[in-house]
Amino acid sequence: MNFSSKLLENAVNEVSQLPGIGKRTALRLVLHLLKQPKSQTHQLALALGELVDEIKLCKNCHNISDVELCDICANTSRNSEIICVVEDIRDVMAIEGTAQFKGLYHVLGGKISPIEGIGPQNLTIESLVNKVKLGTVKEVIFALSSTIEGDTTNFYIFKQLEAYKIKTSTIARGISVGDELEYADEVTLGRSIVNRIPFENSL
Amino acid sequence: MNFSSKLLENAVNEVSQLPGIGKRTALRLVLHLLKQPKSQTHQLALALGELVDEIKLCKNCHNISDVELCDICANTSRNSEIICVVEDIRDVMAIEGTAQFKGLYHVLGGKISPIEGIGPQNLTIESLVNKVKLGTVKEVIFALSSTIEGDTTNFYIFKQLEAYKIKTSTIARGISVGDELEYADEVTLGRSIVNRIPFENSL
Repeated sequence: MNFSSKLLENAVNEVSQLPGIGKRTALRLVLHLLKQPKSQTHQLALALGELVDEIKLCKNCHNISDVELCDICANTSRNSEIICVVEDIRDVMAIEGTAQFKGLYHVLGGKISPIEGIGPQNLTIESLVNKVKLGTVKEVIFALSSTIEGDTTNFYIFKQLEAYKIKTSTIARGISVGDELEYADEVTLGRSIVNRIPFENSL
Repeated sequence: MNFSSKLLENAVNEVSQLPGIGKRTALRLVLHLLKQPKSQTHQLALALGELVDEIKLCKNCHNISDVELCDICANTSRNSEIICVVEDIRDVMAIEGTAQFKGLYHVLGGKISPIEGIGPQNLTIESLVNKVKLGTVKEVIFALSSTIEGDTTNFYIFKQLEAYKIKTSTIARGISVGDELEYADEVTLGRSIVNRIPFENSL
């Protein structure tokens, strides 16, 4: 791309470093900003700058938070005996959206993935084990995505926690509510049959 | 979306104001930034802030520029007798990429579009007419997209320039180089037959 302006080129280069945004999209976004009031761009720049400077990770669950202890961990009405292990804040938001879970979370910050160079030491697994060691945790729920990396991470954590004799569980896999059986993949359908539940529990 | 952090929510809201970026994508982008070194986000914020504060429009062609007169207009080896009318800087970059045009540009800043509330007075049409009035321009090439808005804008400008007896032309429409005839749309194929050129000119 031949830019007539260094300022424009610089802005496009920075924006195009975001994942999934190429040079053309970056140019479109930047030209859009130029057509808006300057204040919008300044607010955007300020919001991003403040975010990376002031964001904290909750010292208990490692979720993104504005304060030392996040709202969920600070909420004494929640059950601190059950911990749901998730990959990142998006999973916390998704589960919170269901309003079905009243325990606490533990955010791993990723999954074990040798290809991406992420080992157990890059995640917050040690912190989880230390929490369990204290003896107040009764159940750990694994809620990672069911990929090879997710299963590996689940198994690694399971092995680490085995000695402490707590209950470990994993979220149910099965046919989505409202889905037609004929379009479901075989693995999911197979698991949903093997892990069938008493009918009265589904009411 | 239930955010555990006001800073995060604020950043996501600002990013999701960009065109084509929803809340989920904005969250993905912002979480990506949080995983990168802080300096990357500060550079991004700085680049955007500087862009909107310091960017200028070339006083001759209205293209985006860092200085009063853009590189193309300031280049004395270019032919100032031919002016190519385009919609925005992306079209300038596309035509410059071909290295086939040695004249100057005139950036309209949009197309006449009553639906979007853009009239001739919102574009740089008057400035183009004033340039032609000076008498040095010999040809104006219309290179707007061939939509109803583009055609309307072409025609409006054509009418404004009619009195000055200069040559006006429009870029050729036809089958793309390498395209199969059978997949071409009828309007394009029809135009390419009506506006056929002597074979020796195509060599």
